[in-house]
Amino acid sequence: MARRRYLYRGRILALALEDERWEIVEHKDAVAVLAERDGRVLVVEQYRVAIGARTLELPAGLIEPGEAPRQAARRELMEEAGFDARLREVLSFYTSPGFTDERITLFYAEDLTERRRPPDPDEALTVRWVETERLLADLHAGRLRTSSPTVAGLLWLASRR
Amino acid sequence: MARRRYLYRGRILALALEDERWEIVEHKDAVAVLAERDGRVLVVEQYRVAIGARTLELPAGLIEPGEAPRQAARRELMEEAGFDARLREVLSFYTSPGFTDERITLFYAEDLTERRRPPDPDEALTVRWVETERLLADLHAGRLRTSSPTVAGLLWLASRR
Repeated sequence: MARRRYLYRGRILALALEDERWEIVEHKDAVAVLAERDGRVLVVEQYRVAIGARTLELPAGLIEPGEAPRQAARRELMEEAGFDARLREVLSFYTSPGFTDERITLFYAEDLTERRRPPDPDEALTVRWVETERLLADLHAGRLRTSSPTVAGLLWLASRR
Repeated sequence: MARRRYLYRGRILALALEDERWEIVEHKDAVAVLAERDGRVLVVEQYRVAIGARTLELPAGLIEPGEAPRQAARRELMEEAGFDARLREVLSFYTSPGFTDERITLFYAEDLTERRRPPDPDEALTVRWVETERLLADLHAGRLRTSSPTVAGLLWLASRR
């Protein structure tokens, strides 16, 4: 029987050793939102502490206790960009199942409605609409510093053409 | 100035707090290999301790010290499936930059050559060639338990059609 011994329990993750051998990170599940309008995709430019650099990513965030994934996605889209939408689940996957149980669900936003102005851009986070073709070209050229749900979302769009 | 305090340093990862606030997992970089032949993709079925379940994933692994990503990908393809190939870099991304610096590079295998029989299937790991269309259908239907590089690889294939 597998035994999991916890070395750390924190705010968004816990670290454990399974059978005194496997390093496991338990992590809250997450959501990401793919919103496209007029040939542009909604992306967030932000500084990521873990990699010490700025990224361009689909809006994303953690699922809070008691939330359904779809609710979390809707909340993130509103908080980060000021939009409401009808959300369709596209796919889900484990980000890196070799060491963490984090699972992310990607939603596609339909019937986008602007409810309020997006937050003022600041150093921490800027919302932008970037041409889908440019994002795909940058991805293929190795010029896009981004996350796994962003790659999944962009390639999903490209595969539907 | 950011300060990173280490709480754990292990075999494949380290856990740190940045500015006593951000939970960061430093993780070795990784590679994955997309090999397709006769309309089938090479996948590995294996038990993943972190999620407590079996997955179907592209062959993947960590980059060892001193290895270039391409070397690591070639080694993984040989070790897990017994194939050699010419490897073309397709794309790379951070698996989950909200908490970890793990970056994965995806390679596409051309000119596949079988060098030896794949290891005998066992409980831990089984190599299979599965129809690309079936994997894509399962992914879209939410029936594929898999990793981010696998999703990226399958959608990249689908986008090239």
